[in-house]
Amino acid sequence: MVDVIDTKRNGGELTTEQIEFFINGYTKGDIPDYQVSALLMAIYLKGMTKQETATMTMTMLHSGDQLDLSEIPGVKVDKHSTGGVGDKTSIPLAPLVASVGIPVPMISGRGLGHTGGTLDKLEAIPGLKVEISEASFKQQLRDVGCAIVGATGNIAPADKKIYALRDVTDTVDSIPLIAGSIMSKKIASGTDALVLDVKTGSGAFMKTEADSVALAKELVGIGKSVGMNAMAVISDMNQPLGNAIGNALEIEESIALLKGNGPADLLDLVLTIGSQMVVMANKATDLDAARKMLQQHIDDGSALTKFKEMIIAQGGDGRVIENPTMMPQATYQMPILAARDGVITKMKADEMGIAAMMLGGGRQKKDDQLDYAVGLTLSKKVGDEVHQGDTILTIHSNREDVSDVQQLIEANISIGDEAQPLTLIHEVID
Amino acid sequence: MVDVIDTKRNGGELTTEQIEFFINGYTKGDIPDYQVSALLMAIYLKGMTKQETATMTMTMLHSGDQLDLSEIPGVKVDKHSTGGVGDKTSIPLAPLVASVGIPVPMISGRGLGHTGGTLDKLEAIPGLKVEISEASFKQQLRDVGCAIVGATGNIAPADKKIYALRDVTDTVDSIPLIAGSIMSKKIASGTDALVLDVKTGSGAFMKTEADSVALAKELVGIGKSVGMNAMAVISDMNQPLGNAIGNALEIEESIALLKGNGPADLLDLVLTIGSQMVVMANKATDLDAARKMLQQHIDDGSALTKFKEMIIAQGGDGRVIENPTMMPQATYQMPILAARDGVITKMKADEMGIAAMMLGGGRQKKDDQLDYAVGLTLSKKVGDEVHQGDTILTIHSNREDVSDVQQLIEANISIGDEAQPLTLIHEVID
Repeated sequence: MVDVIDTKRNGGELTTEQIEFFINGYTKGDIPDYQVSALLMAIYLKGMTKQETATMTMTMLHSGDQLDLSEIPGVKVDKHSTGGVGDKTSIPLAPLVASVGIPVPMISGRGLGHTGGTLDKLEAIPGLKVEISEASFKQQLRDVGCAIVGATGNIAPADKKIYALRDVTDTVDSIPLIAGSIMSKKIASGTDALVLDVKTGSGAFMKTEADSVALAKELVGIGKSVGMNAMAVISDMNQPLGNAIGNALEIEESIALLKGNGPADLLDLVLTIGSQMVVMANKATDLDAARKMLQQHIDDGSALTKFKEMIIAQGGDGRVIENPTMMPQATYQMPILAARDGVITKMKADEMGIAAMMLGGGRQKKDDQLDYAVGLTLSKKVGDEVHQGDTILTIHSNREDVSDVQQLIEANISIGDEAQPLTLIHEVID
Repeated sequence: MVDVIDTKRNGGELTTEQIEFFINGYTKGDIPDYQVSALLMAIYLKGMTKQETATMTMTMLHSGDQLDLSEIPGVKVDKHSTGGVGDKTSIPLAPLVASVGIPVPMISGRGLGHTGGTLDKLEAIPGLKVEISEASFKQQLRDVGCAIVGATGNIAPADKKIYALRDVTDTVDSIPLIAGSIMSKKIASGTDALVLDVKTGSGAFMKTEADSVALAKELVGIGKSVGMNAMAVISDMNQPLGNAIGNALEIEESIALLKGNGPADLLDLVLTIGSQMVVMANKATDLDAARKMLQQHIDDGSALTKFKEMIIAQGGDGRVIENPTMMPQATYQMPILAARDGVITKMKADEMGIAAMMLGGGRQKKDDQLDYAVGLTLSKKVGDEVHQGDTILTIHSNREDVSDVQQLIEANISIGDEAQPLTLIHEVID
């Protein structure tokens, strides 16, 4: 193992044998944490070639089981986000795409730190289960056409172990390590096609456009190398996505979007990614036609119906569609007001995510309990005009004193005379 | 701890608080190995400022006890080598310097890998003990004037723990980490003055002159910052030092040197370092006078007598001075012969050290048992003329089949038409 560390520490390229040795040895418990963490830091600082990253991904993939979805008819299309604040995109997207007849087998994750998790948000719906058997998952895909669940069975155990170590050794935001982690799980999940939503900006792992593009290319390249139809959208995460941050609040916003009342940025992202998925599944010949098709399925209510079917299939109370307030509601609502006239020039995504976490809506540590009710709802976003005393956002809390949260929020929202407008979709990589 | 790792990973400077936090936390067991190893790799790859290295050294120093030698009269002078092959310098040096009336309190170490350890070599002498109490150590310094022992008491426990981790995470040869490790122990040992022998070349941790000079300056700087009179000699380690490699063989060579029959390179190094020590202790006003004084003490036998006194004081059998063959002797002697006429152009120090280790003279792992008898004796060194069939060196072994060792040695000795002569003393840093 010291030889493996030595190769990478000196900036060399690891051989297939070296990569298989450390990943399989670590998964089996033959190599101790402290040697792997030294290697991870060397990988973080010295990088990996495309070949190394691909080999690492395949080795992590083969450390566990692979889902076989070939019995489900049609081109299966999944979507994965690198994680952001207010990023509930998957929730309206899965039923919307499924409503045009495309199977969407979505294996999703939980939130940690300032980013929320799709599974956590869905669990704000009374009764809804995300941990279901492989057989039920496949049955739901056949019956409903979409499912959003946690990993079933023994998917990429090597990644599970390495991810836990990266989390405590400050080696999370490394392009090859992120790429290997995401793609080993996505290849194992058996999807035919995949749209990657690579977030960029203050609330994302990748803070710069260049890093985000590099990660996107790495992800797409690995997908293609195993015959998966993969592409990526680079989308903005300098401010939160949509107007809601917090579990129940984001479900409510997802329902609103499928009712035709979604915030413009969230709708744009859902339609952008959704139309790529529709074209990948050969249900439309071009993106424009695909986008129109999806808008039509929002307008005629079929996407909303599909969402209700999905909720019910996963054991949830379908009445939430008509009555979102049956989800947990926070006791206190406190507005943050504009201190002056002007336009919002900054609303830092990561800090807004931390604010929601501090209210109990996110996890600081892996085993923290969530409060589904709490979070933030934004009345203004970057570029919006405000007058002194206008509500910029509302804190939804179950504790009365939120001065800590208020302080953090106020320090991370700026009002100026002119705002640099934020572009939502930066780039498409395929 | 993740914040500390993050600072260094991003190339920043650690604060005093951060350094104290990780060193004290790790020593107490509050911070796990895997986080410290990630930090060590980040330090390895990103370096440390002089200020950080000094703070780390002092924190490691204060993690344990300090020896107080103020009750011993005179300027106490110690010498420390960064480790090499055939490097028995300390063994004749300590009694030689002590023979002119300078107290030499030498706290030394054991060998690992291709480098030998002074304590291991001394233990080849029947009965000799290197683990003695602090009281006995001080008594011996008063009575004899020199002692070579292992660390007594609880010296720099932080370094002990961090060194063990560096050894298995490929973070040994980092200038700030080496400097902190050496100087925390040397400051704790209570010496007034210190000559550092920083090895450079294939058999040294520092392979290049530039790295060796950087390490030497770091070591001397830290020593001076705490009021220690410190200086460094950069000496060659491209070929083994002297003609003997192996524990008993090196003791035999040390005795021969004090009898006036030492190999030229070893004698030169002993006199170079020794005269610096004599000047530091104010026993001579210049290096030339000091060197003459030391040569005189070899010629008149007083240095040899001092060595015998030291051996006896540490429980060893003093008759070894007259009869070195009372130490363990190897069963088999096998010569390596010159394959052609020419001059020796290369005799790689590290590989010769590994050959001696493979014979059982060194440790591959910390708990390996040593065979004191085995090793190599060199008949030729770089620059020496040879004729086909001449003995270049002799393998001393307790196993009959040494084809593996022979192969390694032959692959690492070259005979050519002309040799680039090696300079022993590269530079003096003070």
